[in-house]
Amino acid sequence: MNYKKLGKILGKILFFEGLLMLAPMCIALIYKESFINVLAFIVPIAALMLTGGLLQLPKLTRNTFTQKEGFALVPLGWILMAMFGAIPFVINGDIPNYVDACFEIMSGFTTTGASIVEDVTLLSHSTLFWRSFSHWIGGMGILVFVLIFIPESNEGSSMHLLRAESPGPQVGKLSSKMKVTARVLYLIYLGLTVMEIVLLVLDKPIPGYEGDHVFNSILASFGCAGTGGFGFIPGSMELYSPYSQYVMATFLLLYGTNFSLFYFMLLRRFRDVFRSDELRTYWIIVATGIVCVFTTLMLHAGEVAQEYTVEEAFRHSYFQVASIVTTTGYTTSDFNVWPMTAVTVLIILMVIGSMAGSTAGGIKVSRLYIALRGSLISVRQLINPRYVPKAKYEGKSLEERTINGVFAFITMYFFTLIVVVLILSIDPINGQTIAITSDAGSYEVQHGFLSNFSASLACISNIGPGLEGVGAYSSYVGYSAISKIVLLLTMLIGRLEILPVFIMFNPKTWKRF
Amino acid sequence: MNYKKLGKILGKILFFEGLLMLAPMCIALIYKESFINVLAFIVPIAALMLTGGLLQLPKLTRNTFTQKEGFALVPLGWILMAMFGAIPFVINGDIPNYVDACFEIMSGFTTTGASIVEDVTLLSHSTLFWRSFSHWIGGMGILVFVLIFIPESNEGSSMHLLRAESPGPQVGKLSSKMKVTARVLYLIYLGLTVMEIVLLVLDKPIPGYEGDHVFNSILASFGCAGTGGFGFIPGSMELYSPYSQYVMATFLLLYGTNFSLFYFMLLRRFRDVFRSDELRTYWIIVATGIVCVFTTLMLHAGEVAQEYTVEEAFRHSYFQVASIVTTTGYTTSDFNVWPMTAVTVLIILMVIGSMAGSTAGGIKVSRLYIALRGSLISVRQLINPRYVPKAKYEGKSLEERTINGVFAFITMYFFTLIVVVLILSIDPINGQTIAITSDAGSYEVQHGFLSNFSASLACISNIGPGLEGVGAYSSYVGYSAISKIVLLLTMLIGRLEILPVFIMFNPKTWKRF
Repeated sequence: MNYKKLGKILGKILFFEGLLMLAPMCIALIYKESFINVLAFIVPIAALMLTGGLLQLPKLTRNTFTQKEGFALVPLGWILMAMFGAIPFVINGDIPNYVDACFEIMSGFTTTGASIVEDVTLLSHSTLFWRSFSHWIGGMGILVFVLIFIPESNEGSSMHLLRAESPGPQVGKLSSKMKVTARVLYLIYLGLTVMEIVLLVLDKPIPGYEGDHVFNSILASFGCAGTGGFGFIPGSMELYSPYSQYVMATFLLLYGTNFSLFYFMLLRRFRDVFRSDELRTYWIIVATGIVCVFTTLMLHAGEVAQEYTVEEAFRHSYFQVASIVTTTGYTTSDFNVWPMTAVTVLIILMVIGSMAGSTAGGIKVSRLYIALRGSLISVRQLINPRYVPKAKYEGKSLEERTINGVFAFITMYFFTLIVVVLILSIDPINGQTIAITSDAGSYEVQHGFLSNFSASLACISNIGPGLEGVGAYSSYVGYSAISKIVLLLTMLIGRLEILPVFIMFNPKTWKRF
Repeated sequence: MNYKKLGKILGKILFFEGLLMLAPMCIALIYKESFINVLAFIVPIAALMLTGGLLQLPKLTRNTFTQKEGFALVPLGWILMAMFGAIPFVINGDIPNYVDACFEIMSGFTTTGASIVEDVTLLSHSTLFWRSFSHWIGGMGILVFVLIFIPESNEGSSMHLLRAESPGPQVGKLSSKMKVTARVLYLIYLGLTVMEIVLLVLDKPIPGYEGDHVFNSILASFGCAGTGGFGFIPGSMELYSPYSQYVMATFLLLYGTNFSLFYFMLLRRFRDVFRSDELRTYWIIVATGIVCVFTTLMLHAGEVAQEYTVEEAFRHSYFQVASIVTTTGYTTSDFNVWPMTAVTVLIILMVIGSMAGSTAGGIKVSRLYIALRGSLISVRQLINPRYVPKAKYEGKSLEERTINGVFAFITMYFFTLIVVVLILSIDPINGQTIAITSDAGSYEVQHGFLSNFSASLACISNIGPGLEGVGAYSSYVGYSAISKIVLLLTMLIGRLEILPVFIMFNPKTWKRF
């Protein structure tokens, strides 16, 4: 391990986090919050900038980085970011327990949106802003951000780092220069976010939240952009008007799209967009999901507790499918009480996730596509041993190594899921009764296998709310501290797509040479 | 498709089923059952022998078979066997509904053990015998049986057929002659079954079942040998003495072992046995499972409804792990009410299953082993592109094609599972309350996602009972006819390891040429 280079890059990450934290500090000043709320940000900002600065001092003896070192550095950077990022919640007293605070901010950075906060109306504006802002930062990845502003002489090393943080089976080089790529992606991201904020501000305010209209529109857009899902008003998105719900769902589907495709559209390379196998599959999955959920709600209209009109049924189907397939986790209605087919479709979408190169989590459409193509090739070879595969993906021939990598990812994904479910099964919360109040009324559920399974799935796929005891209308607060630490690591494993975190925990990685 | 050859082999299978059905007919005669009960077997025997005979008449123009044709023929043979095998239940009135009867006998042949019978004490001896005998027949596979007695000139074609029916990623040729192999395997199977019957008969009879002691010992041994799990006394195996429960659990673990290893032991090739990677992994999984379940029961002793002594806790852990890992599904105590960690461990074992080349279902230990090794290779290649894999499995180098085949299998396994869960979600049974009475007392459960998920898993892995609404103390009778047909096909997909059934349903397979 090149410790000096490691320190330099970690230092840059921490310094930047300090800069980013100035934003919630300003919010505390604008909303004239108490001195302790401002101090809650000043302390970590000072600590971050000092640590970040000190780590820059040693002189480099070697400027390069191996892929393994790159993989190990990124999760370490994210863990440090969460450990510093949790400090404000503890100081201002919004989340006094440090483990809870770490859970919350890791859930933010990884765009999971799983929360331990039971009543968001008790949180200060600065806390609400920092939570949602962490979604926005984590959506594109902090390293991409750092790479834009920092002169980086070694292109190869940057690629090694970016590969660890970018979702999807392969990192596409849009432009020959890493920095240009990073800038273009961030500009698209920023542009979409601003567009959504404007469209939400144009709506009339939510009754009772007139003073916070612009503030809430910004938070909602942050939550959508990172496909995070932290709430900031009671419930999730039920209070928003149908117009705003349609806007949010549509933007969610855009954020679930591979950002390279937007870049191609800007360059008028429409053929590249329309020929994308992944985009076509993504659209088919989304459309099928909406049709299935909507049809189920219509066929079982009498049994649905919320008694929807046709428009409502369509809107909630559209919103919920968009929110789940992009692994965001926002809700406009309590889908836990929907008919079984609708719930089952949503659970399946949770596993799939959206496109590679988007801000969403899950296994990703591209991996699903490659895994199914790969299986078909294997089947053909079994029937006819002389069969020579000529499968293509995104216009290029599909190499055996890519297929194997995808299979390995899916195996590790389910393996991690099983281990986490097993650890959660030890928690004393199992068997407890949890009271839930939603737009479907008040009811009770027992924390059982489905709670643990959906909690693990919701964390590794960066969705947020699960089902049963950890649904959108309850929280993760009931789990023990150990389970919370396991779940926050699961979120990180999901966000960085498994391998980097495993490599970080391998002692061999840290050998000095 | 070589239709004449297809007809000839199907004819042989049906003729043999007719011969096998003479056994339950004799049981009906021995127990002096009513004339209709004897007729219930005479009718299908006559039909099977007539059809089987007629199909032998056409003269062959070509004697060979492609792998694809072999794959398509086997599931077709199994479906026909189930359709004829269901007839007795309908005629003697034990299961009047034909779909239910097909479900029951398919569950028997595939050694699943999922039942639609709510009270086995109402069934006649001949029905009970035919159900359990079907486990024994299906355990090793009907084709292996047919191959022993029928002169088969073409070795290659036999191999094509056997490959479709044998569990595991590769068919090992124990002996150069197919027929010798088949005979040796069947003799080992028969020997183990007889040993178990003797050991069970030596126990004192279950109170109230003194007259049926030998009969019940035979049925229990059939159920264990095929790793099936049909019950024949009230409950499952709770009434048996601790001695018999230990005997059954131990034999179950033996039936979950690759039968080739027994053959090697007979030949005193002990080195081949002890160097088996799969056997070592199987033992580690079983031992870990028992330790986890037993420890959980001890740590949560106060919360377990059944209030076990230490010996009881160990015995139920040992029995339940053996029964689940071999995908049998017998129970000695209601594990649905056990602490969450124990339930979670058992669910994980349900997915894994036992060794290839055994009578058990599931993904199989060998596939798990190869998938994990394959993932490790992919990870190494990702970190170091120049890495050359040199993985070994069972002493031979692990080829890329084998790894890909395993990954393809696992992908298709989960894909099938998801589709079946989705179909079951439409069933009107969802949301219904089901009353359950077991050794843990009386309680109610709701038929929810976990019921459908565990039903699908229990059928594709050939386990039998699932959890929640379809646990060991309830039955599958509540599902609609469509769901039952889907589930019985799922059992067949699981038993024949997916591919053959898919190939059978592909219209291209049936092109005349």
